[in-house]
Amino acid sequence: MKPICAISTPFGTGGIAVIRVSGEGVHALVDRLFKAKTSLMDAKPGTVHFGRIERNGETLDEVLCSVFRAPHSFTGEDTVEIACHGSLFIQQELLRWLIDAGCRAAEPGEFTQRAFLNGKMDLTQAEAVADLIAAQSKAEKDLALSQLRGSVSAELAQLRERLLHFTSLVELELDFADHEELEFADRTQLVALADEIEYKLDKLLASFRTGNAIRHGIPVAIIGAPNVGKSTLLNALLGEQRAIVSDIRGTTRDTIEETLVIDGILFRLIDTAGLRETDDVLENMGIERSRRAAQNAQVVITLLEPQMNEALTRENREKNESILDFTAGFTDIIAYNKADTLSPLEREQLGKNAILISAKNGDVEPLRRELVRLAIETMDTSAVMLSNARHYEAITRAHDAIKRVQEGLENKLSGELLSLDLQDCLSALGEVTGQITNTEVLQNIFSKFCIGK
Amino acid sequence: MKPICAISTPFGTGGIAVIRVSGEGVHALVDRLFKAKTSLMDAKPGTVHFGRIERNGETLDEVLCSVFRAPHSFTGEDTVEIACHGSLFIQQELLRWLIDAGCRAAEPGEFTQRAFLNGKMDLTQAEAVADLIAAQSKAEKDLALSQLRGSVSAELAQLRERLLHFTSLVELELDFADHEELEFADRTQLVALADEIEYKLDKLLASFRTGNAIRHGIPVAIIGAPNVGKSTLLNALLGEQRAIVSDIRGTTRDTIEETLVIDGILFRLIDTAGLRETDDVLENMGIERSRRAAQNAQVVITLLEPQMNEALTRENREKNESILDFTAGFTDIIAYNKADTLSPLEREQLGKNAILISAKNGDVEPLRRELVRLAIETMDTSAVMLSNARHYEAITRAHDAIKRVQEGLENKLSGELLSLDLQDCLSALGEVTGQITNTEVLQNIFSKFCIGK
Repeated sequence: MKPICAISTPFGTGGIAVIRVSGEGVHALVDRLFKAKTSLMDAKPGTVHFGRIERNGETLDEVLCSVFRAPHSFTGEDTVEIACHGSLFIQQELLRWLIDAGCRAAEPGEFTQRAFLNGKMDLTQAEAVADLIAAQSKAEKDLALSQLRGSVSAELAQLRERLLHFTSLVELELDFADHEELEFADRTQLVALADEIEYKLDKLLASFRTGNAIRHGIPVAIIGAPNVGKSTLLNALLGEQRAIVSDIRGTTRDTIEETLVIDGILFRLIDTAGLRETDDVLENMGIERSRRAAQNAQVVITLLEPQMNEALTRENREKNESILDFTAGFTDIIAYNKADTLSPLEREQLGKNAILISAKNGDVEPLRRELVRLAIETMDTSAVMLSNARHYEAITRAHDAIKRVQEGLENKLSGELLSLDLQDCLSALGEVTGQITNTEVLQNIFSKFCIGK
Repeated sequence: MKPICAISTPFGTGGIAVIRVSGEGVHALVDRLFKAKTSLMDAKPGTVHFGRIERNGETLDEVLCSVFRAPHSFTGEDTVEIACHGSLFIQQELLRWLIDAGCRAAEPGEFTQRAFLNGKMDLTQAEAVADLIAAQSKAEKDLALSQLRGSVSAELAQLRERLLHFTSLVELELDFADHEELEFADRTQLVALADEIEYKLDKLLASFRTGNAIRHGIPVAIIGAPNVGKSTLLNALLGEQRAIVSDIRGTTRDTIEETLVIDGILFRLIDTAGLRETDDVLENMGIERSRRAAQNAQVVITLLEPQMNEALTRENREKNESILDFTAGFTDIIAYNKADTLSPLEREQLGKNAILISAKNGDVEPLRRELVRLAIETMDTSAVMLSNARHYEAITRAHDAIKRVQEGLENKLSGELLSLDLQDCLSALGEVTGQITNTEVLQNIFSKFCIGK
């Protein structure tokens, strides 16, 4: 394979930039352009060398070269990382000089793909590299890092290994089909294993909701009447946390949602139209939209007027009641806004546990705390978690197959039929870790990477 | 001084990012967050170590740390460079962890400033670092690199050294003012030295026009009648060269100009309004603007209609004549556009040396070649060149002072008066290299750097 090179640091001008070069013979290749005290070919692995990039008497830059030797590098190949000055011109020229010297410009994710092909990591770990780079919050980073360290693959590889053993025994029986009494694979043990696998896959599938929420943000819907202060609340939450705010990447939703990070957890706030303040609130259009928002949300906040306030009591009580009626089945948090207009007595009447906020004054701490509490309650970040739709899809197939195996065992199905379902399950599990792959899947995965990784 | 840290790679998300940490005790400081086989405190300088960034049981990332020891680092201080995954979240968190651990966020250019303060480079070299990072073309990169290697400072330091020697002798005479006959400083030698310095400073000042053009682009004005194809020519030049195009940075002009790189040379194309095609061309408003553009330009291109074409002859000839009248005194290149409409005979009539182009068809090669030829003619990149306005200003003052010294010597001025001018010259020269500095000048220089360098 031809050596590859790419700018691995973010695109643009900066103090320094790093160009990664990987493949057989790169020490000699880069050395032809590198003038320094020590030749890169003689350099010890894991050392850094100062020198000049030179060609035909022209100096391009003064650089630092870090030297790594196969298999002790990210890709598992011989590697040189060149830290040059961060001028775009110099970065691009250096790339050009390397290509002239015999490299090929790397495709997106090609360094990680080589790491995968060289057995440095399995497919879930390779995918975790991309997730780590895209991480926007602590929870997301933790999830990617745990996956990078092989949490998902270790669990699956172990189950697959044991299943593989049984499958070969079952298939061995087929070779002795004439001897119907032969059972190499102990059916009782197979039932136990299938049960264990079904249980674990089921748990993994269930973890996807959380894992997905961590990666894309925990969806939160704020439901309330118009003018109750939903937008003000949103701004207060955003402002107070000096939040990272951005459009959601990679989402297929066509509405734009705000994301914010509170205490290291990414939340995705779903905008809902204010419910009309008339009595026929249940009939009007907005309701369908709000119901959908609530269904898509993991946390639903019902935002109410401070109904105790004397002057407003009647109108607000009706308003609140119709909103409460609407969200009765699915609300997670009930919060009262405009709490600054309440007297101490009124506050007391609402009860100690009432969540009282004043979005206008930026006083949203009780709601913030409650959001974090609910999020943590639903996330057990120490558990192995699925966060990748590709894994979810393959594990769903593995789960279906293992359920068919369970049924087959119960119905004393023939080894031949059992074996088909076992193979389905094995192959679906193997797809997740990359033990079974096809070029198209690999291309699809790595094409989503950035260039240089 | 407290250790400093900053993201040194361009801002954004990428495969990897590098965070630089510099100052006394940074090996121990980073080591508290770094879990690896080898402690950074035991690590040999110039080695790279793989490990995890960890704090209170939380892992932030898997990183590579490069270790450098004072004085063998860019800043001359103990330094660690941490290559982490290029997620913005991870970059910012890592910065925060380092600050929590006792670092301070670096100011723009502070690493280079420390390199200057620690005697790793003089001021012109430090400034060259910023120029190198901003380099957009080969000539610009060559200029910055030559300055980084001390071309300007070496020349000035040597002259200053010799002048300093004479100045102390002249000042010694002042201590023996009673003995008028005493002359420690040989006046003949001093005259020779002053002449040499005046000559060299004059040459340096003259080089500023070229050095400045290299840094900011050689200004080129295209002058011609409306519809003669100036914009099409611009696009053809830009398109053909797959040029780096951008607004000029750091220029105080309020018009936007296109820059493009041809054969490694940066050109700055100045937009001129088309000159009106009426007879009173010399009277109308556009003329003043075009004249100014021509004055600001180093190369003026007069773009004409292909006057030989039969059908258009009369009208175009008049048009061309009035344009030629206007640019007669200052045009560098005369080019005929729309050459594709000419018959072979007509081409021949225009002469072998005529520059015939067809901007519409992208056929602008003859003009491109002529531009590069003119540019190279005016640039001798092997010579020491001034490119920095601050240097130009200080050297102008040094030049004025040395001329006063020359006059003083001629007029047999007293040592006392001579000494004042000598000191002025020394001080101006010292400002360039940073031997004489004040905090304000330093702040002004380094505040223009990017953070992380």
